[in-house]
Parts: sequence; C-alpha cells; structure tokens
Amino acid sequence: MESRRVEALADGVFAVAMTLLVLGVHVPELPEPVTGAALLAALRTLVPSLAGYAVGFLLLGTLWLGHHNQFRFIRRADRTLLWINLFFLLAVASVPFTTALIARYPLQPVAMAIFGGTLLVAGVFLFAHWSHAVNAGLVDDEVTPEAAELVRERMSMAMVACLVATIIGAFLPKAGLVLFGCMPVLSMLPGRVDPALAGEASTTD
Amino acid sequence: MESRRVEALADGVFAVAMTLLVLGVHVPELPEPVTGAALLAALRTLVPSLAGYAVGFLLLGTLWLGHHNQFRFIRRADRTLLWINLFFLLAVASVPFTTALIARYPLQPVAMAIFGGTLLVAGVFLFAHWSHAVNAGLVDDEVTPEAAELVRERMSMAMVACLVATIIGAFLPKAGLVLFGCMPVLSMLPGRVDPALAGEASTTD
Amino acid sequence: MESRRVEALADGVFAVAMTLLVLGVHVPELPEPVTGAALLAALRTLVPSLAGYAVGFLLLGTLWLGHHNQFRFIRRADRTLLWINLFFLLAVASVPFTTALIARYPLQPVAMAIFGGTLLVAGVFLFAHWSHAVNAGLVDDEVTPEAAELVRERMSMAMVACLVATIIGAFLPKAGLVLFGCMPVLSMLPGRVDPALAGEASTTD
Amino acid sequence: MESRRVEALADGVFAVAMTLLVLGVHVPELPEPVTGAALLAALRTLVPSLAGYAVGFLLLGTLWLGHHNQFRFIRRADRTLLWINLFFLLAVASVPFTTALIARYPLQPVAMAIFGGTLLVAGVFLFAHWSHAVNAGLVDDEVTPEAAELVRERMSMAMVACLVATIIGAFLPKAGLVLFGCMPVLSMLPGRVDPALAGEASTTD
Repeated sequence: MESRRVEALADGVFAVAMTLLVLGVHVPELPEPVTGAALLAALRTLVPSLAGYAVGFLLLGTLWLGHHNQFRFIRRADRTLLWINLFFLLAVASVPFTTALIARYPLQPVAMAIFGGTLLVAGVFLFAHWSHAVNAGLVDDEVTPEAAELVRERMSMAMVACLVATIIGAFLPKAGLVLFGCMPVLSMLPGRVDPALAGEASTTD
Repeated sequence: MESRRVEALADGVFAVAMTLLVLGVHVPELPEPVTGAALLAALRTLVPSLAGYAVGFLLLGTLWLGHHNQFRFIRRADRTLLWINLFFLLAVASVPFTTALIARYPLQPVAMAIFGGTLLVAGVFLFAHWSHAVNAGLVDDEVTPEAAELVRERMSMAMVACLVATIIGAFLPKAGLVLFGCMPVLSMLPGRVDPALAGEASTTD
Repeated sequence: MESRRVEALADGVFAVAMTLLVLGVHVPELPEPVTGAALLAALRTLVPSLAGYAVGFLLLGTLWLGHHNQFRFIRRADRTLLWINLFFLLAVASVPFTTALIARYPLQPVAMAIFGGTLLVAGVFLFAHWSHAVNAGLVDDEVTPEAAELVRERMSMAMVACLVATIIGAFLPKAGLVLFGCMPVLSMLPGRVDPALAGEASTTD
Repeated sequence: MESRRVEALADGVFAVAMTLLVLGVHVPELPEPVTGAALLAALRTLVPSLAGYAVGFLLLGTLWLGHHNQFRFIRRADRTLLWINLFFLLAVASVPFTTALIARYPLQPVAMAIFGGTLLVAGVFLFAHWSHAVNAGLVDDEVTPEAAELVRERMSMAMVACLVATIIGAFLPKAGLVLFGCMPVLSMLPGRVDPALAGEASTTD
C-alpha cells in the first residue's frame, strides 16, 4: 500500500516525541544522607513536570488518533500530501519543547500561547491533510461526501476548542492549563462520526 | 489490518523507552592522567545504574511480550481500545524516569513505591486492554472463552506479584529490588497459557 | 517483501533524527521572579535554534521523500544495497549534530561547510543507492530506463544545488543559510519526474 | 506473519540506538568572539567522538544485517526466541553507552574490554537466536541443513574475530580500535553464504 511508509514515519515521530517528553522530568539530586521526607519533598516539586508529561502525552495521543483515523481511509499519497504530513510532524515533534516550556513557566501567558499555538498549527495541518486527501481523490471510494464532511466538522470543533483554550490561556494561564488537560477527555467520548465511519470501515473489511 | 498502526505506535514507544534507559548510565568523568585502576573504580560505582538499565529493559520486555501476545488475537480496534492502549503506553514511557529514580535512590521506600506502582498501573491497563478486547468482540473468533480466561488469570497473577513486590519494597527496598529483578525470569517460563494459545494460533495460520 | 525491513530501519532512523533535533532547543532558565518581558526576550534568543530545528527537519524530510520514492520501485535488496543504505543513514543520523553546530555558530564558514557537506554526502549515497538498484536489477520491471534516468537527473540537480549552497555558505554563511532554507521548498514543487513515475505506479497498482 | 512485531521492535531499538550515538558528539562551547581557527581547533578534538559514532553505527549496522538476514527465513516465534531476542536487544541498546565510554577513554584496556565484550555478548545471543530457530523448526522449510550450518559458521567466525579483537584491545587498545573499525568492512564482502541463501530466497519468492 502506497501510504504505508507515511504512516511508519508518522508513528515513529509520535513514538519518539511521546517518549522524549519524559526526559523533561528530572530525577532530583539530593545531598547525602538522603531522608525519605527530603526525597518526598523533592518529588513534590516534580508535579508540574509530571503533569506536563501526562498532558503532553495525551494531547499527542489525541493527534495520533486523528492521524490514524484519517489513514484508515487514505489509500494513496501524492507529493502535496507527503509535505502536509511533514509539516504536521514538524509541529508534533516540537511538543517535547513546548511541554518543557510550559512545565517550567506554567503561569506565563507567552508560554501558554506557544504551547497552544503549536497544537493549533498541528491541528490546522491535520485538517489540511484530510481536505487535500478528499479533494485529490486519495481516499477510499467508500468514503461518502457526508462522512468526509462529518470528519471536517469534528476537526473544526477541535481546532476552535484549541484556539479558545489558547486565547483564554494567554490571559488566564491556569484556566488554559485546565482546558488543555480536559481536551484529551473530550476526544475519548464517542462522536457522531464513529458510526458513520464504522459503517464505511465495515463495508470495506 | 485495523490494529496494525496501534502495534506500530506501541512498538515504537517500547523501542524508544528501552533504548532511552541507557541514557541513565553516564560515562564517568575522570581528571587526567587517567589510570586503569581509577577508571575501574569509577565504573564500579555505575553498577546500580547498569543493574537498573538491565532490570528496566527486561521488565519493559515482559510488558511488550504481554502486549504482543494480545495482538496475536486482537483483530480490530475501537476508540476505547485505542485510549486504553495510550494510557498503557503513558505508563510504559515513564519507565526511563522511574528506573533512573530507583537507580539513584535504591534504598528509599518512596522510590520503590513509585517504580513498582508505575509497573502495576501498566499491568492494570494491559489487563483492561484484554478484557475490553474480549468483551467488545475485537478478538479473533477462534479465541475460546476458556483461553481468554487463562490469559486473564495469568495477567492477574502477574499484577498480584507486582503489587506484593511493591508493598514489600516500600518497607524492605532491597527485597523489593530482588523481587522485581526476578519478575522477567518468571515470564520466561512456559505457562499453561502457551499450549492453549498455540492451539488457537495454529488453527488460524 | 524483501525490502520491507530496510524501509522500517530507515523510517526509524529518520523519525528519531527528526525528533532529536528538538533537543537542540533548550528551555531558557530565568531567575525568579520571572516577568513576561524577560521570558519573551529569552525566547527571542532561541530563534536561531528554532530556525535550525525547522530547516533541519525539512531537509531530513526532503531526504526521506527521496528514499521513500526510490522504495516505491525497489523490490529486492542485496548486500551492497543494504550497506549503501547504512552509509546513507549514517549521514542522516548525524544531522542533529550538524544542525546544533550551525545553530550555535551560524556565521562560521567551517560550520556551514560541515552542515552542507553532510547533506551532500547523504545525497551522494542516495544517488548511489538508486544507481545500484537500477543496475543490479532490484527495481520493479515496470521502471523504464527513461524514468530511471529522470530520477537520476533530478537527484543530480539536487546534489549540484547542495554543493553550490555549501561552497557559497563557506564564504558567505548568511547566503548559505538562506539557500539551505529554500531547498525543501524546491522539493515541494512537482517535477517532470512525477507524471512519469505516477504512470509507472498506476500500472503496478 | 507471526514474527512481524519482533522485527518491528528490533528495528526500532536499532534505529534509536544508532541515532542516540550522535548525542555522544557534543557541539563545542567557545567564548565570544569566536574565530574560525578556534572553532576548527575545537572541532579537531571531536575526532575521537566522531570516529566512535561512525564505528558504533557501522557495528550496529553489521548486527542489524545479521538479524535481518535471519528473519528472511524465520517464519514463527516462540517464547524462547522472543526472550533470546530481548537479551540480544539489551546488548544492542547498550552500545551508545559503550561507544561513549571508548570515545572518552580510547586508550584504556578496561574500556576496550567492555566495548568488545558487549559486542561479543550481542553476537552470542544472535548465534543462539539462529540455533534455536533452526532447532525448534521456526525457519522456512526451504532452509537446508547445509545453509543453516553455513550461517552458523559465518557467525562463529565473526564471534571469534570479535573475541580476538577484544583480547588484543585489552592489551593494545590502539590495535583493538583498528580491528573493530575494520569489522564492518569484512561484513561488506560477499560471503559463501550469500549464493546459498539467495538460492533459498529466490525459490520462496
């Protein structure tokens, strides 16, 4: 299948980016003799890093899911699709940096704007990816215009949510953090898009 | 196959996490002139790091094996399975951190509890993964309820062992270290589950 | 397919190299209390690193695309092809280092020469890879000598462009930086080679 | 295919280990103002690291090639094979550490012994991997006992070469370095094993 290696590269970038996130969590260095209370206190200061790790991982997971779902229906790739995919991965691979930035400066609006802005850019490229695939006829013939439109709607809603969280976060960083933390949860809910696509998938099985 | 990319992402996360473990082993910095005796003495201080690397790697290998064995029978994926898988990988990708923590503070109960607790969480998600796959009918039709139950039993035993080792380790860190070091060995032994599953596999070959 | 694992290794090396690039961008360390203005000023000093990340990523993307396109037609692998591939990946995997070097010393001719020289070496091995595959009969029978020649021409042009940019960069580093930044853009343009290869691909679909 | 994911994990570990090697090459930090001569002098001190990177990469490539060639004929995997494979990968993933060690202390016998010893251990597991696959009937039926024996012979020779280089290196580190640098070159030469296996492969194509 023509699109196999595009998926392999993407899976690799996602896997590395997800796992590199943990390098942002540093084992605390304590002077000897180390007491349990001192270690516990030092570990408590890691909570922002650990929360950043978990949220960054799950947001990457959400993007991966979107990419994965598209490729269930994309059958071919052209030069434009490959480049949109590379720009999408450029944003994805920068998440370990933006996550480390926000874990270090959780209350700074500019950190929030960069974190949210990167996710928004990733979302825009993912949207462009699907739009191009549908328009250029690279998707499975079984994908009806209605199903393609449902996917576009769901992605638009996700991008609007991300834009709103970024704007709110640029003024109220704490509220922004909570909103981004909730975003993967939304993606866990079954959507109207599922039965439509499941229908497609089952007919092509 | 629907589940192909889930496996690709998981294999990527496992491969990166396993290999990142080695970044926890630092080449010692010695002042010039370097003597063989000084280097040997410095390398001896690396033994906890190296043991941590080996044990962390083999425990990840054990988890990978469990994941691998499940996907020999999982044929499809739904949104719930994908999210259980992502939470499982979230725990897996944090092992380089928990291993570095325990290699740095091998005798601290809190380090032991975090190390063992993370593995236990990974085990719980792996168990939930299989249970959901069986209950939602995502596995091969050839998997009998008895075989599915045998897998569940084996996984439950592994989780109980992990829980016991974590609790013991939280009081007697040295005993906990030995128990976790033994765990991959147990997984190397052939189990009652092998012939049952081999039977399944051969009929689907 | 014989060539499947060669592609898997290459995709893995590309994915890791692309994502490791971001480790060259360090979160700035500011003394407390942190003001928005101080953070913004510190982030501005990251612009060369971020530009290096983006350009390095897209140049790796360009090389990946070339590798990907070759393997659409390569059906088998022999020992020579595997070794040419390994030397190509040796150059690819060093890009995180050469990119960090040029991001740190953007105006030093020697940094420019190493950065450009590494890309040129990668290009030469990629060219040798295709030449060997065609000459040793490892490609699909549908690849006409004309199409094989078109690919070689396109790759030669890319190598000449890289050589010119390296030489110019060794004297005028700023001009070299601009030229390397433009190179992925050139690769995004559709080429004469596309319809010829698309023709091949569609007949083999 | 049963053995597909074993290969995916192995390719991932090799790709990460190969690319992590480059993290052992550090961009030199020079005080301002930076002159071309000072940078060139600083880069010259990187030669041992760069040589270590190249030799480590090509030795990993040699091991990957051996693994790759085995899996052209391995059709199934059992629990024992999976564990031998994991121990092989444990040795492979430690190469970034042993390479950094030898690049830092190239003239220390103990560094040489650890570097060579790790490669030898990897070779022993790779040999055990093939022996087990042949003995347990996990390979393709087309593999004749003669071909299986030829592979074993070739691997034995490689292990003897590695043992000799390690022993020599433990006494004469410089000679050991040269010998390990030559080892990938030997692997590039076509062997008696190639036509025998090519014959097998072509009949199964």
